[in-house]
Amino acid sequence: MPKQLITPQKLAAMIDHTFLKPTGTPADIERLCAEAREHRFFAVCVHPSEVRRSVELLRDSGVAVATVAGFPLGQSTGAMKTAEAREAIALGAREVDMVLNIRALARGDLAYVESEIRAVADACRSAGALCKVIIEACYLDDAMKRSACLAAKNAGAHFVKTSTGFATGVSVTGATVADVRLMRLTVGPDMGVKAAGGIRSLATALAMIDAGASRIGTSAGVEIMRELERGVA
Amino acid sequence: MPKQLITPQKLAAMIDHTFLKPTGTPADIERLCAEAREHRFFAVCVHPSEVRRSVELLRDSGVAVATVAGFPLGQSTGAMKTAEAREAIALGAREVDMVLNIRALARGDLAYVESEIRAVADACRSAGALCKVIIEACYLDDAMKRSACLAAKNAGAHFVKTSTGFATGVSVTGATVADVRLMRLTVGPDMGVKAAGGIRSLATALAMIDAGASRIGTSAGVEIMRELERGVA
Repeated sequence: MPKQLITPQKLAAMIDHTFLKPTGTPADIERLCAEAREHRFFAVCVHPSEVRRSVELLRDSGVAVATVAGFPLGQSTGAMKTAEAREAIALGAREVDMVLNIRALARGDLAYVESEIRAVADACRSAGALCKVIIEACYLDDAMKRSACLAAKNAGAHFVKTSTGFATGVSVTGATVADVRLMRLTVGPDMGVKAAGGIRSLATALAMIDAGASRIGTSAGVEIMRELERGVA
Repeated sequence: MPKQLITPQKLAAMIDHTFLKPTGTPADIERLCAEAREHRFFAVCVHPSEVRRSVELLRDSGVAVATVAGFPLGQSTGAMKTAEAREAIALGAREVDMVLNIRALARGDLAYVESEIRAVADACRSAGALCKVIIEACYLDDAMKRSACLAAKNAGAHFVKTSTGFATGVSVTGATVADVRLMRLTVGPDMGVKAAGGIRSLATALAMIDAGASRIGTSAGVEIMRELERGVA
């Protein structure tokens, strides 16, 4: 999307303002939520143990609280990912970014992958929340990426998402334009595509949107908004 | 411990043979369990979604199955860590390596840290299983390491453990001799200390044991045993 076609309001409404480090202080969460409120980001994305506090901090702001399940390795059981989603929603989260079981996907057990996603997506939908499926694209070949996206679509998830930002042992761990394009082509126009991992500039965010992303997960949302407001791209 | 004082049998009985990558194939788990059976390692340490299969593969071997909870970031809720422990034990796991809430520790909320550990430790103990507490030492200063160890001890955990092996953003992420020594001095002689993360050689394993480790978590257990059998240290 050329930068002249996006307004700050529209870009802000696509950003999940994210803090998923295992370390940090209560001030980090307070700052995250204050920034999200100020810039009218779509959501903050925080760890399950920070959901309650974030919901309090964002009361009456219009900013949603998103959290994660099976994060970041995706190797907990489907029952636990579902339990995490239910608990988070009960605490006030409105979106759950779950990590699919990469190993089950790689061995071709799509029935397992899909059933796990369906359980989480059903838990979300029945509570009016959204389910995003992190496919951790950096570990997958293109055929597996397509299978992962179709499993998420078939299982009733609302979004596919590129990356956790925590992958190790591969050279590129975050979102790529090529992956976002492949994911958008695979899921079609009606499902969400979230690009996340390593998005630190306006140019990168706009390239992801141009490739088909409908949501951007980033810890650099404030810097990106400043770039747009200054007219840098 | 000088190498002449440890036999292969004794060393093997201190090793948690570990495979915690998010990727891999069923053959990786089959190989892990076959090696553990052959070398009589104390346990295999696998992700929750691999517990059932590992328990089947190790039936009548004498090798325990260990798994993880809240892994590797420690930022899921205490209720979910406890649910993960219960589910894993029901599937046949006999040890649960949980990650404590690093952020709660850093903000000095020791009551929270301890209550979370107690819930998991109680779930383990009531089922005859062991609870290890991963303190992720690379993120902590020495005072926090001591607090973490004392919280684990007070809460009734069986072991403290140095590292997940998945920390990022710090130069040293695995076990260090200094940390193992501090942890042993802090918990005293009767609690377990598990050194894990980056232990790839016999010399390193022996240095950890010399510093007070009673268990070694490593994916290089076979190589380490070969070194001992060849008399290399």
